[in-house]
Amino acid sequence: MNYNIAVIPGDGIGPEIIGEARKVLDKVGSVYGHDFLYKEVLMGGISIDTYGVPLTEEALETAKNSDSVLLGAVGGDVGNSKWYDVAPNLRPEAGLLSIRKGLNLFANIRPAYLYKELAAACPLKEEIIGDGFDMVIMRELTGGLYFGDRFTKEVDGVMTAVDTLSYNETEIRRIAIKAFEIAMKRKKQVISVDKANVLDSSRLWRKVVEEVAKDYPEVTLSHMLVDNCAMQLVMNPGQFDVILTENMFGDILSDEASMITGSIGMLSSASMNESKFGMYEPSHGSAPDIAGKNIANPIATILSAAMMLRYSFDLDEEAKAMEKAVEAVLQEGYRTGDIFSEGNIRVSTTEMGDLIAERI
Amino acid sequence: MNYNIAVIPGDGIGPEIIGEARKVLDKVGSVYGHDFLYKEVLMGGISIDTYGVPLTEEALETAKNSDSVLLGAVGGDVGNSKWYDVAPNLRPEAGLLSIRKGLNLFANIRPAYLYKELAAACPLKEEIIGDGFDMVIMRELTGGLYFGDRFTKEVDGVMTAVDTLSYNETEIRRIAIKAFEIAMKRKKQVISVDKANVLDSSRLWRKVVEEVAKDYPEVTLSHMLVDNCAMQLVMNPGQFDVILTENMFGDILSDEASMITGSIGMLSSASMNESKFGMYEPSHGSAPDIAGKNIANPIATILSAAMMLRYSFDLDEEAKAMEKAVEAVLQEGYRTGDIFSEGNIRVSTTEMGDLIAERI
Ligand SMILES: CC(C)[C@H](C(=O)O)[C@@H](O)C(=O)O
Ligand SMILES: CC(C)[C@H](C(=O)O)[C@@H](O)C(=O)O
Repeated sequence: MNYNIAVIPGDGIGPEIIGEARKVLDKVGSVYGHDFLYKEVLMGGISIDTYGVPLTEEALETAKNSDSVLLGAVGGDVGNSKWYDVAPNLRPEAGLLSIRKGLNLFANIRPAYLYKELAAACPLKEEIIGDGFDMVIMRELTGGLYFGDRFTKEVDGVMTAVDTLSYNETEIRRIAIKAFEIAMKRKKQVISVDKANVLDSSRLWRKVVEEVAKDYPEVTLSHMLVDNCAMQLVMNPGQFDVILTENMFGDILSDEASMITGSIGMLSSASMNESKFGMYEPSHGSAPDIAGKNIANPIATILSAAMMLRYSFDLDEEAKAMEKAVEAVLQEGYRTGDIFSEGNIRVSTTEMGDLIAERI
Repeated sequence: MNYNIAVIPGDGIGPEIIGEARKVLDKVGSVYGHDFLYKEVLMGGISIDTYGVPLTEEALETAKNSDSVLLGAVGGDVGNSKWYDVAPNLRPEAGLLSIRKGLNLFANIRPAYLYKELAAACPLKEEIIGDGFDMVIMRELTGGLYFGDRFTKEVDGVMTAVDTLSYNETEIRRIAIKAFEIAMKRKKQVISVDKANVLDSSRLWRKVVEEVAKDYPEVTLSHMLVDNCAMQLVMNPGQFDVILTENMFGDILSDEASMITGSIGMLSSASMNESKFGMYEPSHGSAPDIAGKNIANPIATILSAAMMLRYSFDLDEEAKAMEKAVEAVLQEGYRTGDIFSEGNIRVSTTEMGDLIAERI
């Protein structure tokens, strides 16, 4: 079968890691008899350099007309890049926000788990890690402070800036449903994170999540305040299965969660709409400091491509083959620099891609 | 001299830990010749039980007319307490928000540092801790999402809830000045945390902080995005001296920071207005599960009282005496249950207070 994939290499290490993901996908295609057809789309800094804007209408259309999107990373070094000497809506990250909204990708799924093989890189002590942890953060991605009205105005000579945090029942319900659906395939536990002791939007959030929970009697739902969750992630990460939360809290908590794994170069993510359409990307950023050196870790992108096969194309067996290939290579001791320890075999970005492709 | 202190024991372990702080203050008074005069004020659940509201006008007036406020903790077990079966503005925590706003306590100072003696309780690995860490979070406390307009309304049969995040230059400037002033007495480094790649309020925040920085040429200022800060606290806490941030980000990050110390029962905090007036309280909560058992750790409250002597009363020597007494007791091996390890001497709340008072 043919699958049309919009590929967005982006900036920094983006093109390198996307290259390796394509390499592995192509191998999967030839082994299992699929044709993965790629259309390259510019977004972020490279689009600014080429077209003057971080995402063109045409680029968005190409993404819309594809079966799924595979993204590397966008953005540069904020302190040192000319991309940031302009209004925020013209900067690389604005492309990311536009494509999320434009494709209605309201459900951001970010797994964070401890790789047994890489436990040495986890910043938490062994007694905290316990039997390990394996959670999924379900972050609402097209609402809240990110997309509310905002303005800066002068009143009596004093500038005031306002951002708006807004959620309606429909927005909350659809992301809650996604969280409960995922929980059903996992340990059947949802912790919904909010700040209901202060925010009206959090109280509506809690109410709607409670309603959705009624349709999933097998799933245990509890609520946690966001400040407490920031603590619990560090003290007892093993207690989490699915964390369900709004956009800004999800941004903060998912980064914290990915960091406690010690392996941010390994974590994939998916952003989905109501149907099976999704944009898949590594959880990490564009790492401009190591771009072009052939040392970046391509595994998070390769695993994101595996998520794409599973969630958007229903190619579960193929996805598993990719994940197994990654595991095999890790077990054989191959490591890029970010996850290298004493006794491992150090490999480059392209070597890592080759090794994984060979094992499909 | 006479010092009039409004004392708010609050709920849960509040009365117990406040009792020990008063015990130690009284000893300081008798040794150094000061009269600390206490006026008890009800706030939180106990005020709800007595007056039906979490903070009465009279209570706020008493606090206003005092020289400073010493607070235990407010709130109960959200899942199991009748205090929470009412509208949010009638719950215990609403008293806390009202007193912060009513006393104009815009500057929340939360130190987070690793106690060498208690490093065993820190959840981070030794190589992450390095030479230890010692930071102060300066959190804006009377603006942002906490105090913006909010409402829930029905549009076309769908409920929508809105909260507003607003900051003006004046609010940002005064908290920034406090942060730079504190940095001048420390390692002269301020990291201002925002989400300037998304929020207008964060961009104004960044601009005003940059302006204030010009008056402190000796202080190094840098900016960090809130999601990155949540990661950096776990990966490299030693890099922080003073973190300056807005209300909601400060809520999340200060809890994360206090948890990585592993000693939340030891951390004090102060909330100040423009002058020397302040409210002092432990960083931890009311811990209803261990209330009334004489096992809570009173040290955070005792150290908060020491902060009060230093910041509100300019009694630096007396503050140091309190801090030294705490150190001495720890070095001698005395511990409440929360910080107890093999080989220590386990003591109760009141015993800990006695031991510290004796060493003044
Ligand atoms: C680049 C930025 C706008 C983005 C976000 O905050 O959503 C990023 O931090 C992320 O989490 O994907
Ligand atoms: C109780 C709650 C309203 C409060 C806050 O969010 O400010 C608490 O979490 C704190 O940090 O003091």
